[in-house]
Amino acid sequence: MAPRSCPDPTCGIARSLDVLGERWALLVVRDAFFGTTRFSDFRASLGVSPDVLAARLASLVEVGVFERRSYREPGERERDEYLLTEAGRELVPVLAALGSWGGKHRPVEAGPRAAYRDGGSGDAVRLAFVTADGREVSPGDVTMTRSAGAAV
Amino acid sequence: MAPRSCPDPTCGIARSLDVLGERWALLVVRDAFFGTTRFSDFRASLGVSPDVLAARLASLVEVGVFERRSYREPGERERDEYLLTEAGRELVPVLAALGSWGGKHRPVEAGPRAAYRDGGSGDAVRLAFVTADGREVSPGDVTMTRSAGAAV
Repeated sequence: MAPRSCPDPTCGIARSLDVLGERWALLVVRDAFFGTTRFSDFRASLGVSPDVLAARLASLVEVGVFERRSYREPGERERDEYLLTEAGRELVPVLAALGSWGGKHRPVEAGPRAAYRDGGSGDAVRLAFVTADGREVSPGDVTMTRSAGAAV
Repeated sequence: MAPRSCPDPTCGIARSLDVLGERWALLVVRDAFFGTTRFSDFRASLGVSPDVLAARLASLVEVGVFERRSYREPGERERDEYLLTEAGRELVPVLAALGSWGGKHRPVEAGPRAAYRDGGSGDAVRLAFVTADGREVSPGDVTMTRSAGAAV
């Protein structure tokens, strides 16, 4: 997939958005975390057109977020399913950050929430900014600056 | 701004992407963290068309990420500048998560990186998943599930 024009091709945020910036791309990844693997199930969940969904899945395979694998149900033709790679599973902080912001700043009265847990212990986890010695810092207190050499 | 169609309007991820899902939206927010406030400076940094930039800024004002304020340089006409609100500043975890993923999975040989610090102490901070008692859990070990009542 050709990167879209951006005057700052070395910025990690811009490079992520090159492959994840389409709204449906991250919702496909969200559904994959919830266990969806099949085209028809992504489509039913998202209500997106087949063409758009196929394009998003192809892009996400190309950049290594999903791997495509064939499967065959008894009596049916071979189909593809889509499994998150390690790079795909490492998108969980992006989803957690978006979900947390939306829950606070785009609230609805009730509805499901995604729950994040340590897969080993089952303990609930949340996303936080921490210093090297483990002290937590509130997001509102965090500043973001360009490091030396930034060319934006 | 009318929300785009989504079968799951109560999902915080989907609601965030309703307002942030356009790629340029989050790059505008990134530049605002770096100190940009003026239309002409956003445009110079991003190389985006004036129409697209104006539409993104208007949306981001409407949803409360930016506030618009008038200023006037000596001898010039009044112009608008755009300042991050508290809700806008709370997007820093989204940017940090995207930047971290892009730095690892869409690497380039060299280039600027964003640096995140505690504005009070100046200590460097990074985004991490932590348990209630402060234990850090690797993103690759974090599972994401729908809470009870989820309707996706």
